[in-house]
Amino acid sequence: MSGSSPEHIPPVGAASADTAGVQALPVPTDPVAVAQALIRHPSVCPDPGPAQQMLAVMLAELGFDVWHLPYGEGAERTPNFFARRGKTGPHICFAGHTDVVPPGNEAAWTHPPYAAEIDGGVLYGRGACDMKGGIAAFVAAVARFMRKGPHSGSISFLITGDEEGPATYGTKKVLEWMAQEGQIPDYCIVGEPTNPIAMGDMVKIGRRGSLNAHIVVEGVQGHVAYPHRADNPVHRLLTILAALQAHPLDNGSDWFEPSSLQVTSVDVGNPSTNVIPARAEARLNIRFNDLHTGAGLTGWLRTLCRQHAPNARVEVKISGESFLTAPGAATDALVKAIEHVTKRTPKLDTGGGTSDARFIAQYCPVSEFGLVGASIHKVDEHTSVADLETLTQIYETFLEGVMA
Amino acid sequence: MSGSSPEHIPPVGAASADTAGVQALPVPTDPVAVAQALIRHPSVCPDPGPAQQMLAVMLAELGFDVWHLPYGEGAERTPNFFARRGKTGPHICFAGHTDVVPPGNEAAWTHPPYAAEIDGGVLYGRGACDMKGGIAAFVAAVARFMRKGPHSGSISFLITGDEEGPATYGTKKVLEWMAQEGQIPDYCIVGEPTNPIAMGDMVKIGRRGSLNAHIVVEGVQGHVAYPHRADNPVHRLLTILAALQAHPLDNGSDWFEPSSLQVTSVDVGNPSTNVIPARAEARLNIRFNDLHTGAGLTGWLRTLCRQHAPNARVEVKISGESFLTAPGAATDALVKAIEHVTKRTPKLDTGGGTSDARFIAQYCPVSEFGLVGASIHKVDEHTSVADLETLTQIYETFLEGVMA
Repeated sequence: MSGSSPEHIPPVGAASADTAGVQALPVPTDPVAVAQALIRHPSVCPDPGPAQQMLAVMLAELGFDVWHLPYGEGAERTPNFFARRGKTGPHICFAGHTDVVPPGNEAAWTHPPYAAEIDGGVLYGRGACDMKGGIAAFVAAVARFMRKGPHSGSISFLITGDEEGPATYGTKKVLEWMAQEGQIPDYCIVGEPTNPIAMGDMVKIGRRGSLNAHIVVEGVQGHVAYPHRADNPVHRLLTILAALQAHPLDNGSDWFEPSSLQVTSVDVGNPSTNVIPARAEARLNIRFNDLHTGAGLTGWLRTLCRQHAPNARVEVKISGESFLTAPGAATDALVKAIEHVTKRTPKLDTGGGTSDARFIAQYCPVSEFGLVGASIHKVDEHTSVADLETLTQIYETFLEGVMA
Repeated sequence: MSGSSPEHIPPVGAASADTAGVQALPVPTDPVAVAQALIRHPSVCPDPGPAQQMLAVMLAELGFDVWHLPYGEGAERTPNFFARRGKTGPHICFAGHTDVVPPGNEAAWTHPPYAAEIDGGVLYGRGACDMKGGIAAFVAAVARFMRKGPHSGSISFLITGDEEGPATYGTKKVLEWMAQEGQIPDYCIVGEPTNPIAMGDMVKIGRRGSLNAHIVVEGVQGHVAYPHRADNPVHRLLTILAALQAHPLDNGSDWFEPSSLQVTSVDVGNPSTNVIPARAEARLNIRFNDLHTGAGLTGWLRTLCRQHAPNARVEVKISGESFLTAPGAATDALVKAIEHVTKRTPKLDTGGGTSDARFIAQYCPVSEFGLVGASIHKVDEHTSVADLETLTQIYETFLEGVMA
């Protein structure tokens, strides 16, 4: 690990080197204006800084204490910050990332990826929903909530510049700092786009874990006519893979679908039809629910491989453990806010890929709710202007529910 | 198919264009001299001609009618001949090939591959045992047998110049001609080196069949996190391969070991750990005994593949059917000759790879017996001079047994 000392700047004064690239600040209560301003600061992962710096300046002007927490060095340097307003509980944190994925073929966009153009009630741009739009809605919700007068508790932002990349020097490092500084919140909302089709579809309250394994079996090469003089590693590997698939890992749990094991590749590369090869390998991925741990599955894999191929090499990489924030008061407040604004009851879901929520879940309850995710990572990423307003109202209603 | 008209030359007179490269003829009753003369006519597959032409001239001088039967055109042109002495039954045929495999690294030979040097009672050279030595022993056995006086029946030679290559224009074509001309023998001996360690080890009375299959399963690509939206072709292929191996093909038969199925390669080539691939393929080889046919196994493979992957593509290539010449009078005579000369009882075997006997078995009973095969296809291929004499005596004793 490497990291520089956090720089605490409450409040931000005149323009510094860090704010050199920041344009005129938008009105904070307008989520569309804030989202446009963020999109117009291109910040392909890792965010080079200005997009995040603009956000920090806006929050400082709203009265937040801001700690800049860059980690990593050289090409890995990742800008992050933590910002908090208030010192008492309840402490509600909004977590998000200012970095975006590359635009791909810019010529294919009907509206330039960093122009943040609005056309027919739709805002186009890289990050519109993943997740500059989500950040903008939270800023606007906080600004509107504060405008109503004093409130109890604290609101904070955990912002990283590397969620779309390796995420090594992002949220994980900021959380370590937060834990050291006594800044762990009571509840965290990650503003990732969780709705498949329309606002109110889905809140994510956990995610499956993910594990990749690479199995290599060495045998003894020989002529196919004399199999007893050889030891076919393909047969040993096939026996292992059959055993791995012989029984389902589980039948699902209260909040999770059944765990899933997918063999993604088997490779031998033997061009000779009359030769038993010396080596065979397979790769597989397991998406696992809260009935398993990465370590438990690793042990199961190793035992089973050794049983059928004593010399098998099994490399396992655990991308993330499964986690769950079982529904409680804060999640209830979020669901009620969604119902109030959209008149729909969201599904509490644990499916899908990974997000930084996997790191946060190790410290405090966390759920994820944001915009509609259908266009993320694609050409012409977009969000409807109406959805930005809806999300702002949901976040504001949620803050009223937990902090009023 | 292509082929020129057979040229019948009984007897061979003055040197013709065909015999231009032939050196002085050796004494036919001396297997060592005949083997040396054959080795000194290099004839890497396909035999360009002179080695085979010398043999034809020797047989013509021994009173054989010779039909030159070249088939194929251009680079595929393959010299072959059929030679017969006598018109009545029993008709005993000796089958062999004058072509040899390449010498490989000539510098690695302790004795040059075409010098046919004898050193310490051992004759070195490419083809010494596979199978110019075997041919020489048969020529010497026939010459010695004829020297003893008139005999009933006929002796013939079926000689090809392409056994080590694709064998498309060799023995198979000559047999078609022999069938048309009423020249199919009552019994055929192939002089391939069948003894693993010492003379008298083994007679081959059949061979397993061989079949190669290539199975391709197409699925639907997708993200490993959403397997229900994809169709993993690896899982379908693994199910097929598990089913293929679930039960042994058989438990062997009277003269055969159990058939064997070896998966030689499984290939997906998917580098992405989070992607379910679109395609998976496998290659396998089946060595099958006389309880199966290539067509029967092909049907079994196709049915089973379709059961688990309706769109599976299954390409099957049958390299050879299994065949067996169940022991009878002629094989008994061969075994008795081996016992008489070596004082050992050979094993009647059906294992190992393929030879031209697979073509002959479609027309008449056939067995294989020759020299010790340990050095075939290697650098310093060799046979002991004593083994050449032993084999000559075995062939002569066999001829006496079946023709006297």
